[in-house]
Amino acid sequence: MPKQVDHRERRETIARALWRVVDQRGVQQLTLREVAQEAGISLGQLQHYFASRKAMLTFAMDLAAEQTAERVGQGLRGLGEHPHPREVLRVMLLETLPLHPDARATSRMSAAYVLEALHDEDVRTRARGGLLEGRALVEHLLRQAVADGHLAADRDPAVETGLLLALTGFTTLLELGAVTAEEVVAAVDSHLDRLFGGG
Amino acid sequence: MPKQVDHRERRETIARALWRVVDQRGVQQLTLREVAQEAGISLGQLQHYFASRKAMLTFAMDLAAEQTAERVGQGLRGLGEHPHPREVLRVMLLETLPLHPDARATSRMSAAYVLEALHDEDVRTRARGGLLEGRALVEHLLRQAVADGHLAADRDPAVETGLLLALTGFTTLLELGAVTAEEVVAAVDSHLDRLFGGG
Repeated sequence: MPKQVDHRERRETIARALWRVVDQRGVQQLTLREVAQEAGISLGQLQHYFASRKAMLTFAMDLAAEQTAERVGQGLRGLGEHPHPREVLRVMLLETLPLHPDARATSRMSAAYVLEALHDEDVRTRARGGLLEGRALVEHLLRQAVADGHLAADRDPAVETGLLLALTGFTTLLELGAVTAEEVVAAVDSHLDRLFGGG
Repeated sequence: MPKQVDHRERRETIARALWRVVDQRGVQQLTLREVAQEAGISLGQLQHYFASRKAMLTFAMDLAAEQTAERVGQGLRGLGEHPHPREVLRVMLLETLPLHPDARATSRMSAAYVLEALHDEDVRTRARGGLLEGRALVEHLLRQAVADGHLAADRDPAVETGLLLALTGFTTLLELGAVTAEEVVAAVDSHLDRLFGGG
């Protein structure tokens, strides 16, 4: 059904135009009009694909989450058959931080979505759901690591999960140039080394 | 000079109106017009005090930083004459996170300022300066802690500073309800215990 493919493609093109507006001009400039202009289509055409700003934003966020998951998946495949949980967490953390242009675009998109979530109950529910999924995934990984003897049994997986997720706080420091990418990677490695008893 | 006092007072009233707009409606709604309405003055009166959106935003951010510093100062005075660096860092970290309404207002104000910084070179320079000052302060504290024997000499103060600052990443998790305040306090305590060899 080529028509459905076209529809999906057009929606992705629009979502990427939205990312560029967020990335280059900021979420403050994010209106249907700006996105239509960036995508090179009319406002009417845009509204044919997305009935509202919120629908457009949600699709763009879903696409960003998909892209991040793909980058993480690619990184994980590079680790071989039975990767150590330390390496799995390292790929997940580093691909979430704005350490290269692709990750920066998805990171800024997430930030825009969080901002929208503060003042919109539907967006908040979705954004919260995404964070809770991420939290559950990391916590599951840590519990498995304890079971497999990779992580000391006296570590509280819930607390350690929180501390790992909080490391996304490097985003602001990176975006404003208050730390370098090398410093962030060294800090993440140091945290993981200590968590898994290697440092 | 009562006239100067009035001027300062009026500017603070406007800055607080700006905070309320950011807090309740979001930075997307932050225009001179919205702030004038929230402050109960005319756009012309507002422009008498702030020539531009940027001047207003910068003053509101300075006031937020001042308020945070005051809350931290108050917390530190509660620690007595020679507080342990662990307790000093605990007060600094917990007062920066949106764990109570005052801290939430200043935290949202900071987030709005960071967002503006991504697309405005002047704001970026100021915001970066603020972060670097905070970074230098924490690093100085940690170096002193090593000198005083409170912190193991094999800890790298620069790396540990980065990891402490990154804990501000709890902000998003708190704002979206993906962690509770109690979980954040427990995680911060756990991190500090381990840093200072207490856990």
